[in-house]
Amino acid sequence: MGELSSEVRALLKSDGELIATIAQDIHTKEILMLAWSTSDSLAQTIATGRATYWSRSRNEIWVKGETSGNLQFVKTIFVDCDGDALVFTVDQIGVACHTGEKTCFHREILLTGIEEK
Amino acid sequence: MGELSSEVRALLKSDGELIATIAQDIHTKEILMLAWSTSDSLAQTIATGRATYWSRSRNEIWVKGETSGNLQFVKTIFVDCDGDALVFTVDQIGVACHTGEKTCFHREILLTGIEEK
Repeated sequence: MGELSSEVRALLKSDGELIATIAQDIHTKEILMLAWSTSDSLAQTIATGRATYWSRSRNEIWVKGETSGNLQFVKTIFVDCDGDALVFTVDQIGVACHTGEKTCFHREILLTGIEEK
Repeated sequence: MGELSSEVRALLKSDGELIATIAQDIHTKEILMLAWSTSDSLAQTIATGRATYWSRSRNEIWVKGETSGNLQFVKTIFVDCDGDALVFTVDQIGVACHTGEKTCFHREILLTGIEEK
């Protein structure tokens, strides 16, 4: 799937570390999910335009929505000042969460308790 | 600083694990930074309404903006489906990034290269 350019590589903190990656809906600005990137999965995201992550539980690269059809088309990528976090703004097909909710962040913690959104 | 209620605790994946925490500007919906919470720092955030994180480099709890004055007043907290990531929507005083930029995510990775925002 190719490799990251040296320019992009220079922005990242370290090659081996997992990079926390936030997917944000480009239309609503809603935060959809938090997942993990590696150098290889990021290279694949850049090459294909489809959000591709590293699964910590399965220890493998996965294309978001490959099975469910709920793909994320990546429109912009931003890296943070430390080089260990990314934001993908995405055009989300269907929903982001495996529960069927639009976003994985659908449970609210109130100052005084818990409430479903 | 008190402890998390059993209700909130039940929403989290594990007590010992660091919880990736996204700060989002409540007004602009811009993603400001990614930091880390623990049970204790989250309890402090809930109790004080000021975004409080765990510093992985200093191994201590820190109140965002305590030194710089760039506090974050937390308006809502959402937890994800896995219980290992949080979103704080915040009223950001000043800027979020130590570089002086509004957001830590100010460097763009283009499909074909890099561009300052």
